[in-house]
Amino acid sequence: MKSRISDALSDFFFEYETPRQVLVRNRRVGVVCRLIQLGVLAYIIGWVFIYEKGYQSTDTAVSSVFTKMKGVGYADVNGEQRVWDVTDTVFPPQGDSSFVVMTNYIITEGQKMGTCPELPGKHNCSSDADCEGGSFKRTGHGHMTGMCDNATKTCEVAAWCPIENDHNIPDPPLLMSAENYTLFIKNSVTFPVFDVTRSNLVEGIDATYISKCLHNPRDAPLCPIFRLGDIVKESGFNFETIAKVGGSIGIVLDWTCNFDVDVKHCKPIYHFHGLYGNPAETDKARASVGYNFRYAKHYVEDTVQKRTLLKVFGIRIDVIVQSLARKFDIIPTLTAIGSGVGIFGVATVVCDLVLLYLLPKRQFYKNMKFKYTDTHGQPDSESLGLVTSSVYYTDEAKARPGQDTARSNDPDSEAGSTETEISKK
Amino acid sequence: MKSRISDALSDFFFEYETPRQVLVRNRRVGVVCRLIQLGVLAYIIGWVFIYEKGYQSTDTAVSSVFTKMKGVGYADVNGEQRVWDVTDTVFPPQGDSSFVVMTNYIITEGQKMGTCPELPGKHNCSSDADCEGGSFKRTGHGHMTGMCDNATKTCEVAAWCPIENDHNIPDPPLLMSAENYTLFIKNSVTFPVFDVTRSNLVEGIDATYISKCLHNPRDAPLCPIFRLGDIVKESGFNFETIAKVGGSIGIVLDWTCNFDVDVKHCKPIYHFHGLYGNPAETDKARASVGYNFRYAKHYVEDTVQKRTLLKVFGIRIDVIVQSLARKFDIIPTLTAIGSGVGIFGVATVVCDLVLLYLLPKRQFYKNMKFKYTDTHGQPDSESLGLVTSSVYYTDEAKARPGQDTARSNDPDSEAGSTETEISKK
Amino acid sequence: MKSRISDALSDFFFEYETPRQVLVRNRRVGVVCRLIQLGVLAYIIGWVFIYEKGYQSTDTAVSSVFTKMKGVGYADVNGEQRVWDVTDTVFPPQGDSSFVVMTNYIITEGQKMGTCPELPGKHNCSSDADCEGGSFKRTGHGHMTGMCDNATKTCEVAAWCPIENDHNIPDPPLLMSAENYTLFIKNSVTFPVFDVTRSNLVEGIDATYISKCLHNPRDAPLCPIFRLGDIVKESGFNFETIAKVGGSIGIVLDWTCNFDVDVKHCKPIYHFHGLYGNPAETDKARASVGYNFRYAKHYVEDTVQKRTLLKVFGIRIDVIVQSLARKFDIIPTLTAIGSGVGIFGVATVVCDLVLLYLLPKRQFYKNMKFKYTDTHGQPDSESLGLVTSSVYYTDEAKARPGQDTARSNDPDSEAGSTETEISKK
Repeated sequence: MKSRISDALSDFFFEYETPRQVLVRNRRVGVVCRLIQLGVLAYIIGWVFIYEKGYQSTDTAVSSVFTKMKGVGYADVNGEQRVWDVTDTVFPPQGDSSFVVMTNYIITEGQKMGTCPELPGKHNCSSDADCEGGSFKRTGHGHMTGMCDNATKTCEVAAWCPIENDHNIPDPPLLMSAENYTLFIKNSVTFPVFDVTRSNLVEGIDATYISKCLHNPRDAPLCPIFRLGDIVKESGFNFETIAKVGGSIGIVLDWTCNFDVDVKHCKPIYHFHGLYGNPAETDKARASVGYNFRYAKHYVEDTVQKRTLLKVFGIRIDVIVQSLARKFDIIPTLTAIGSGVGIFGVATVVCDLVLLYLLPKRQFYKNMKFKYTDTHGQPDSESLGLVTSSVYYTDEAKARPGQDTARSNDPDSEAGSTETEISKK
Repeated sequence: MKSRISDALSDFFFEYETPRQVLVRNRRVGVVCRLIQLGVLAYIIGWVFIYEKGYQSTDTAVSSVFTKMKGVGYADVNGEQRVWDVTDTVFPPQGDSSFVVMTNYIITEGQKMGTCPELPGKHNCSSDADCEGGSFKRTGHGHMTGMCDNATKTCEVAAWCPIENDHNIPDPPLLMSAENYTLFIKNSVTFPVFDVTRSNLVEGIDATYISKCLHNPRDAPLCPIFRLGDIVKESGFNFETIAKVGGSIGIVLDWTCNFDVDVKHCKPIYHFHGLYGNPAETDKARASVGYNFRYAKHYVEDTVQKRTLLKVFGIRIDVIVQSLARKFDIIPTLTAIGSGVGIFGVATVVCDLVLLYLLPKRQFYKNMKFKYTDTHGQPDSESLGLVTSSVYYTDEAKARPGQDTARSNDPDSEAGSTETEISKK
Repeated sequence: MKSRISDALSDFFFEYETPRQVLVRNRRVGVVCRLIQLGVLAYIIGWVFIYEKGYQSTDTAVSSVFTKMKGVGYADVNGEQRVWDVTDTVFPPQGDSSFVVMTNYIITEGQKMGTCPELPGKHNCSSDADCEGGSFKRTGHGHMTGMCDNATKTCEVAAWCPIENDHNIPDPPLLMSAENYTLFIKNSVTFPVFDVTRSNLVEGIDATYISKCLHNPRDAPLCPIFRLGDIVKESGFNFETIAKVGGSIGIVLDWTCNFDVDVKHCKPIYHFHGLYGNPAETDKARASVGYNFRYAKHYVEDTVQKRTLLKVFGIRIDVIVQSLARKFDIIPTLTAIGSGVGIFGVATVVCDLVLLYLLPKRQFYKNMKFKYTDTHGQPDSESLGLVTSSVYYTDEAKARPGQDTARSNDPDSEAGSTETEISKK
């Protein structure tokens, strides 16, 4: 038993199977098939391997972004001068990846809780009957008291009074100086699969360089200091327009890295694009333009709680990190090769179809390629041997007229022919 | 030399190799193998191509979300009426993708720095010895002074006084009116690989529609205006419960797009689900229910710094963008085809195993399929020619008894048999 | 017609094609090729299936994070004692996944808008001519009035006065007690493809456990309560250093899950690493160290708007969720098998090259493997039959000297040879 296994093993190890092939010497088929095969080869090598880098596996990064604005704004409203430093104009203040820089505002100072008439245009009324006490409108400013104010012809509401009037947006925007603010972006990315950590402060971007540089797509593409006006311009907006009503801009840090080369070539590329109200999307933008929110500073004056309400129009900046790293990996390489071989098989199938169904000599090639076995005329007893075989072949020769001579060219079927000749003798 | 290369080239180009095959005419094997092959074909076409869309490559989007709440809250606590507009009830105010809407609160007004006794239940003491001066408890409110307050029997601490007492959560929640607040979501997604940018304000969702619509999964699935009460209900929560202690809800914008059809069919689907304290996860929820945080408004009164402390219970809403776009791509198509051909090969291997090892006539098929060469009995000098070959075959015939007649059926080996017959003559 | 189709169909169904193979009995080739094939098999099974789990499809999660800090800080600056609870030291307060814990600060109280000289070192001047009125410096604090202050020899600016002097960072940091703050992280992940939702409060992490536990990579790896000092230490920082100038730390929740086993084995692993100013990246860190931002509390005193400016140095913590779930899927399994079969084909090609071009008996094997057809010497009329075939072979035998005997060993072509020999007789 043991020797039989070792025999089988040695048989298995010392044998090697290779498919038998027909070498068709036909110019037309040869050229067509070789071209198809070369096409497949070119596709696999050129497209999958070189163009799409199919020999690499990919990974996306986890990232962390820190931002810091610098600059001083200065607004002069009816002679009242106000200095706005970034502490008061960047929301939130702690340096998030998504933040808003105030560029325009409507200020309502000294609001306190009380009752006052609604804004004209909201809850118009002619008598108290038009103002249902206790109800409120979703877009209104407070709960109705049930009174109609005679002077403004609007319902009286319990709200923070006086009510903010935001009908007129300051134009030109009050903080046009924001154009010269600068933004510093610090970004750290980690590719967990490849275990690589990179910062946007790459080699050569040191403290000395940062203190002097200003980002410019052509001259200083790696400088992490951005002028707000430049960001707006690169995104395709007009600064004064966006500063007046607000808008939203995405700063994309594109980390497309190839870790088959030195890791120091892995550098971010900065893109800027408008997220909403993009100039190219004018029709969509109409649905909802601008960017604004309200913000209140609360204080107590003479034991009365008051607040200063700011309607802030601003540029919202989202720092978006987009990453794709690639590195040689044996799995995708062999998968690509393996499925490439499979496509070679498809090419062979196509050529075989041409060979076996389209060529005039298809019957000849069919006999070269195929060997037939038949169980119909072949008894299971396996005892008739040679004679049965010759009978079968002779039968088939009759059943397929015109195939005779073709088969004579087939060395495989010569036995049959030999048989015939022998029997002729 | 040159002509030899061109000869080899023309040989290569005008030749074509195709594997030689045995066409087994056996009903059982035929049906089994054809069914296996059809199964593989059905799998490749039906599953990989049609169901899983294996001919497409995929991409996920980078996205930006802007939110805006609207509504007015109104709280009446012991006759003291307070209006809460979204400026004071949404944190942070600037329209982030993740924010909290206050629905209930515990307010502690006029806190100033000083010393006061701790809350009952924390740092109980009977004498000063129980209160170690300078130490503090992680969950306490300040540093101990080392004194024990006789009235409350708790240690005295240096803290913002009076200390907030949050033992009783207002019930019903103070801002039940938040149920009628509305949320507007603006979302922009960019698929970088396919270079497509979409907004959730898709075609047809214009300013006129937005001003009137209210999201409803059935009637208005694309309206970007959501009623807070609806969001809570869709997430499976009860509004009053979640409003009292707070909770967390995810609004998922699902962008599953097929860019083989017109890009305008790429529309978001909105899902709502509870993130923590999901009613279905009752046992896990017990570990940590509700959502609350503290928030202080600082002010100065009579040169003393004071603050109003708010313990905010609220609904945290995370707008989560989930995206998967697909588009026809030649690489996955050919990879799928290629590996499909490979699986065809596996099917052939399986059928061959049946053919060669399970069928009663396996020996016959083995001889049809395989041609043997042997180096054991075959000298390297390659000089014995025809006789050696016949000897070899005769040897083998002896070595494998019962194979004789089977081989006679094999036209390949007939030459040998013919030989034998000739030699018999 | 109908019967012809059904005939073709039954032919198709009852037939089965299998490639004919040469079984090469050569020890060297056999061993080499079997080893190559075994290598491919080992690679497919061992590497693709077992190591890389190629039979599984993958999914990444959408997640939501809630954080809550607890602790009390206590600062004693020149005898002025101040209690800092988390309400005032965590930014933003609402429990975001990214937040800053204040550990040090420079406070400038009672700023009001006015004019005052710039800080020494900024805008130095010797006379008014050095200070251009109306202009401002990006890194300055306000707009120049055009005056030069004689006492400080710096330009006078319109700004929030007095101007913050941040030349001296308090050392030791004022809020060293932050080391004992604790952070609670609640994280919910949803794998949309596999439809699984998990929370970091996994089975066994209930309210009782949470109230007592403290995260420790060895003893309590699943406890979601973290001591700030431990987080800093695990990240490789020194607490006092990072507390003084600030820093940035990433807490990675690594969800690597295998859904082929029970979902309860899907648990997060917590990693901590410095995002900027990582001790290991000293040279990069120099470019930009620390983490700070400014924050103002506005109030009104005697009808004058004032603010308390805080320059906050702190530890920014980013909770980063990294997820990769795997589950058995038929598509990648069959793709892996299919392309594996393709690589088998590559192995066969390599072995064939050895067999047909490197072995001494290559001509013999070539004749075993290939069957030649020729259209050059072969008329299209297909009428010459057997004789043509023998002529062709004889021709070829002449064209390729030394091939004669090799072909005699080829049972396929023996018929021809036999023919010739017979005719010679």
